[in-house]
Amino acid sequence: MDKQALYVIKVGGNVIDHEALLSTFLKNIAAIKGHVILVHGGGKIATRLGDKLGIASKYVDGRRITDADTIDLVTMVYGGLVNKKIVASLQANHCNAIGLCGADGNIIPATKRPVKTIDYGFVGDIQTSAINTAPLISMINGGLTPVFAPLTHDGNGQILNTNADTIASSLAIALAAIYEVRLVFCFEKKGVLRDANDDNTVINKINRSIYQQLLDEKALFDGIIPKLDNAFAAIDNGVKEVLIGHADDVLQNTTADVAGTLIY
Amino acid sequence: MDKQALYVIKVGGNVIDHEALLSTFLKNIAAIKGHVILVHGGGKIATRLGDKLGIASKYVDGRRITDADTIDLVTMVYGGLVNKKIVASLQANHCNAIGLCGADGNIIPATKRPVKTIDYGFVGDIQTSAINTAPLISMINGGLTPVFAPLTHDGNGQILNTNADTIASSLAIALAAIYEVRLVFCFEKKGVLRDANDDNTVINKINRSIYQQLLDEKALFDGIIPKLDNAFAAIDNGVKEVLIGHADDVLQNTTADVAGTLIY
Repeated sequence: MDKQALYVIKVGGNVIDHEALLSTFLKNIAAIKGHVILVHGGGKIATRLGDKLGIASKYVDGRRITDADTIDLVTMVYGGLVNKKIVASLQANHCNAIGLCGADGNIIPATKRPVKTIDYGFVGDIQTSAINTAPLISMINGGLTPVFAPLTHDGNGQILNTNADTIASSLAIALAAIYEVRLVFCFEKKGVLRDANDDNTVINKINRSIYQQLLDEKALFDGIIPKLDNAFAAIDNGVKEVLIGHADDVLQNTTADVAGTLIY
Repeated sequence: MDKQALYVIKVGGNVIDHEALLSTFLKNIAAIKGHVILVHGGGKIATRLGDKLGIASKYVDGRRITDADTIDLVTMVYGGLVNKKIVASLQANHCNAIGLCGADGNIIPATKRPVKTIDYGFVGDIQTSAINTAPLISMINGGLTPVFAPLTHDGNGQILNTNADTIASSLAIALAAIYEVRLVFCFEKKGVLRDANDDNTVINKINRSIYQQLLDEKALFDGIIPKLDNAFAAIDNGVKEVLIGHADDVLQNTTADVAGTLIY
């Protein structure tokens, strides 16, 4: 029997931060025929709220350093404010969304990242094989659209901050045995760009050897490398295809002939 | 066929606000044999965070007045911080909890309370008949323990602040056709008291006529009347029994011979 299609879609960056962009994006999500999992980042709301509360935001290599105050902050903002507002908006668009984090149903157990040179604090690393897909499959097949905040837990009562791209690719891989999974990374650029400031320089297709060449040329802009690493990990583990591009484009055109970058 | 037992348990007040009390309470919840739904209030965390953010808390008749800033605040605190921490703690106690609000799965649709003499703001009123039990039943029968934050939605994208007692009694009523439901209100007192300051004055059993008598005598303390109204609404609509008492007592003794107050 053919597998059913499932889109695992990650949205972050300035889509979350702009009400009009987010509204259009969620309308597009609601219009997708077939199964969807949405994974969202937190945007700058946590940073702004942290500033008001005197919780300074620290980053190393693009990852937030998560101390005790910060994990409470992101649990509130990502798991509460952003997640439930997205759910309510999808419901208004007749998409039967259900807001989750990785602790819910023990779907995404994680381990606190070990301290090597950097102490990331309460940050979770995922083993894809540990993901509990049963409750997710039950929800998806029951017509629900899971919406994940970028949070996991350690099984001992501690919530952990976890990269949303990693959550999306891990869920995509864990579900690839059950569904024909397309993983979609939506962000503020048109795709993987040769020139980070020029949306006309989208690289339409990237495979392993092109990726290596781009790395050698140092042709890739900040923040895209973890995204591409996640994408290739997904492809190597059964995910059918990965699309990277602007929220407005990639949801409307998810065939091989894409606006955006196709990872194959 | 006999119906399976389901406990719908509401916890609020100072249990949520005290880490040690909450920890013991959640251990007791995890130890219950059989199906459980937990509904939690927000405690004083929202008020304290609101103070830091310059969002003043206003109450009329024990109900928070919920303006635009306040609905964001309680969505963060109730739906994010409190809800996900409870879920993570239950998971640590081997209870497969899943954190929800009424918008998730469109389980609890509500309508914004109409303005009569008081404008409550973004506060939701529930029609029990509108509750969508299908996703809940699927979760419960799949071994999950739903944990509800006291939030609903209007179906048009707006989250609404909703009394946790009302959510608990509405869920209890909506599920009474499927399960043998016991509704348990856990709070900081030993039960319904004749003297609000004396835990030795617990009224062990209250029916409609005793309730009327207590109302006539003005013998009931602040905040307990809505709880009793919710309790009787539940009994009148198929819920087997309602227990009101201290978190430490009522979870350990849920037969008719209770520590606490039994509503019948």
